[in-house]
Order: sequence, then C-alpha cells, then structure tokens
Amino acid sequence: MTSVSDDSRGGARRATFRDPPRFAWPVRVYWEDTDGGGVVYHSQYLAFMERARSEWLRALGADQSAIRDGERVQFAVVEMNVRWRRAARYDDALTVTVELAGTGGATLGFRQAVLRGEEVLVEADVRVAAVDADGLRPRRLPRAIVELL
Amino acid sequence: MTSVSDDSRGGARRATFRDPPRFAWPVRVYWEDTDGGGVVYHSQYLAFMERARSEWLRALGADQSAIRDGERVQFAVVEMNVRWRRAARYDDALTVTVELAGTGGATLGFRQAVLRGEEVLVEADVRVAAVDADGLRPRRLPRAIVELL
Amino acid sequence: MTSVSDDSRGGARRATFRDPPRFAWPVRVYWEDTDGGGVVYHSQYLAFMERARSEWLRALGADQSAIRDGERVQFAVVEMNVRWRRAARYDDALTVTVELAGTGGATLGFRQAVLRGEEVLVEADVRVAAVDADGLRPRRLPRAIVELL
Amino acid sequence: MTSVSDDSRGGARRATFRDPPRFAWPVRVYWEDTDGGGVVYHSQYLAFMERARSEWLRALGADQSAIRDGERVQFAVVEMNVRWRRAARYDDALTVTVELAGTGGATLGFRQAVLRGEEVLVEADVRVAAVDADGLRPRRLPRAIVELL
Repeated sequence: MTSVSDDSRGGARRATFRDPPRFAWPVRVYWEDTDGGGVVYHSQYLAFMERARSEWLRALGADQSAIRDGERVQFAVVEMNVRWRRAARYDDALTVTVELAGTGGATLGFRQAVLRGEEVLVEADVRVAAVDADGLRPRRLPRAIVELL
Repeated sequence: MTSVSDDSRGGARRATFRDPPRFAWPVRVYWEDTDGGGVVYHSQYLAFMERARSEWLRALGADQSAIRDGERVQFAVVEMNVRWRRAARYDDALTVTVELAGTGGATLGFRQAVLRGEEVLVEADVRVAAVDADGLRPRRLPRAIVELL
Repeated sequence: MTSVSDDSRGGARRATFRDPPRFAWPVRVYWEDTDGGGVVYHSQYLAFMERARSEWLRALGADQSAIRDGERVQFAVVEMNVRWRRAARYDDALTVTVELAGTGGATLGFRQAVLRGEEVLVEADVRVAAVDADGLRPRRLPRAIVELL
Repeated sequence: MTSVSDDSRGGARRATFRDPPRFAWPVRVYWEDTDGGGVVYHSQYLAFMERARSEWLRALGADQSAIRDGERVQFAVVEMNVRWRRAARYDDALTVTVELAGTGGATLGFRQAVLRGEEVLVEADVRVAAVDADGLRPRRLPRAIVELL
C-alpha cells in the first residue's frame, strides 16, 4: 500500500486512489477499538470500513450532509459478507480499501479490505442502499452520486 | 444491593428503588465493553450510567421518546465528575445506581455509582440539561418530568 | 417470541430456549446504540448478537472466563453474512435469537436474528472459531463446550 | 488551531506542538460517533481525548506497547471532570488538544479540549495513573515516560 503514507510522528496521512479504482484510507488502532481478547473487537472493523467509504465519497466530491439535507436521502448498509482472517492489535497502523464493485438503481456494491502492510486482516463484500432520510424507505441513488461515479 | 436479582441463568433481572431514593439497574459486561487492557473501557461506564438514567426515567413513568416527539425536548449531559476506582472485567454482573441530587429550572443533578456486589468501581456526579431537540439550545425541564419528580 | 418477557417497568427479563433449539435474549436499545440517522448503528447489531451468544453459552452451563483461563482457548468470529432489513430505534425492546446451525472440529455455526416483536430486523449466519488465547491460532473446540452441545 | 492542517480531500493530517506545551490532534466525526440525537454521543469525546493522549505520547517518543510489554506498566484514567458546552455533528473536523498540567509520582494530570475551529465544544481535566499491567495496582510512572517529560 505505497499509496498511503504514515510518518513516524504518527500524524501525516494521505489518501489516494490506487490504479485504477481502489481507494485507501489509513486507520490507527486505539484502546477504544480493542476488546479484552487483546485485539480489535470484531464489529469495529465494520466501523473502520464505513470511515473509508465516507472518505471515498468525500474524495469523489460528494457531500453526504448536503445530500441528506437537500435530497433527504442517506445511505444504509443492507448486506455484508465479512471474513475475519487475522487480528489487529493496539497501535497498529491499518489501511482500509474501498473498491466499487457494482451499481444498481438504488444500491452500491463494494469490495473492502482491512490491511496491515501487505497482510489482509479482514475482507468484506458490502451492499449499501439509498434510503429516505425520514422514513428509511428505499430510494433511487441521489443524482449527485450517480453523476460522480 | 439486595434489591437487584440476577439469577444463575444470567437472565432474570429486576430493578427497584432502594429506600429512599436510590434506583438500581443491572448491567452485564460483554466483550464489546472491554478493551485490550482486559477491563471495561473507561468511557463505557458513562454509557452504563446513561442506561441506568434511562431506566430510572422509565420506572418513574416518563417516556423519553414521547417527550422528544411531543415537546421537542431531549436531555444532554453537560457536566460529569467521574472517579474510576476499580476495574470491571468481562462477564462481571454490575449494578448501576441513580440518585437524584438536585433539580434546577433546566437541569437535573445525579449521583451515580457502578458497583460489583458491594464494591464501588466508579462514582460520578452528573448534570443533565433539557435542550431543544432541533437546535440543542437550553430549555426548561419538560412539565411531564417535573410533575413526576 | 412469547418465551421472552419484558414487563412494563422495563426491568424484568427472562431468557429461554424455544422448542427445540432456539435461544432468545432481550436487548433494549439505548442512546449509545443509535447513530445520527436516528436508528441503531449497523455494526452494533453484531455486538447484540454476541451478547446473545454469550448468554446462550452461559445458559448451556459453559463459563467462557474459566475456559479462557483454564484451557487458554477463546472464541473469535471468523465469518458473518448479515442482512439488515429494518431499522431499530431508541428505546425499542428487541429480541436476539441464537440457533446452533452446525459444529466442526474447530468452529461453530449459528443462525441469528434480531427481532422487534414478530418483525425480523436483522438476520445473520455466523461462524465462530476456537482460538488460542495467547497467539490466536486455531484450536479444537474446548471439550467443555463439545460435551455441552 | 493553525498548527493542524486538514486539506480539502479530507486526508492530509499533521499534528504539532503549539508554543509552548499544547499538542493538537485532528479527529473527524463519523456515523459511529453520533447518536440518535444527531450529535456526537457524550462518552465518545472521552475516546477522542484518549486518542489525542496516545498521539501526544507517540509524538514525545514514548511507545505504550513497548512499555506495557517491557515494564508491565500501562495507564488508566482515574478521574475526569468534563464540561460539554456545544455539540459536534457528523462530518465535523475537530481538533483535540492535550496540555500536561501536572506530574505526580504515579499520575499525570492533563487539561484537554475538543474544538471545532476556534470554538470550544468540550473541556476536561484528566488524571491518569500508571498501573501494573497484570493486577492493575498503582505503580510509579515508567522511567521511560518520566525522562521524556
């Protein structure tokens, strides 16, 4: 993952699109992410993946808050298949990738992974649906998003 | 804490008011609550305390959702002084107490504790304010609450 | 889900095995579980499901802490397929079910659901593996567990 | 907070010490941090503050994992006084500051704040103690830390 830098001060971060369609976002593991088994709590990887999808949208130029306030549409995860292969520990510098795997009228499909260096820790197929911000009923994908993809 | 029962099947739960004004609510520690140090993550006790305040309100007969939808008022924690004395571990059966310590025009004060048996693990003084559900500006306490107290 | 009672005081809880092999555990939704979309955050259902698996083990008579300290074996989720169908909201009284769907030498398969009354909100197929508590390498299922199943 | 940059791609991050002793760390608000009130859940600010203390230690040159494995010492929060003044929302770019406010034989005192631009959202006084990684009993501060301060 040479596209992500994380300097020794632990601060500098840079996200880029890999060639061509894979986006990568760095995540540092803090105590809040771990459980009494000494490793990252299994459901917390889903939050890491959502952080990366949010940053992927931002990098594309989409503004989730504006879409929600304007078109009254937001996104909801409707299906995930997740494989946990190896455990991340406190202080690990992880990378979360996002690859758009398909677009329907009302849903987006993603392939995502959480890596430590080149080592794949967790993989997931994710399906996200556009829903009405008020009643959470299915909606077509917001035009602002479709135009960006 | 004889007022709280938790049978060996881990299921049965009963909450009561102690004499005179102390309410107690049982909380079981799950993996999601612990961190890599093997103990409950420090901020999670604040969530345990809010669970107990929610159940205290319910036991009084107040309905937070109805108040929010009706009067457009909700509650926000505005100040806490928290002392962590001992650590809870996975699987511990805890008790969280709620004692109303003062009422202002727009705020409620509480004394709360998290116990394991008779042992005090965490203590806190909590101040909660009524706020506008839309803009989060301070509001007077909802009448429904004032009448119950 | 008549096997789970939750009285109007919000306190009493009882868990039972349904005929034949389905276990049910009640979960109340608190603020900590919700997100800014007004509904339970998607990954939090995975924590609810783990609470139910922990209580299922306890109801069988297994003691996770003792197994971990004694045999140095713990459990790790290795695969989940999750379908989120409807959203739970603040204050909802949910039921989480656990059904053992298969046993391997080193893994357990479960079918789980999160319900609100009779309405299915989330469904999942879950595979859990026994791992070494120190190095997290795969291990055979602890004998104490195999004998109980 | 000119010492923290966060470019428009949402990615680049840089942390610095302000003159003289105030360290600042950027935090982005994701869905996982918010609650059904539409704002960051109150206890989550405590996790944000711990992220910043972890990064402050790293910036000083301390390695918490090495100290834990080597000297068998870790840190535990023992007291916090927290004032929540304004609410952060989804997508806000926050800054968390860390200022060392005192050192005892076994404890460190901090003044911390969470800001959105120049606006102070949350303030806290924090006391952290060195504890034995095995039994969580109080210990003297690790030499590696004392030498750095």
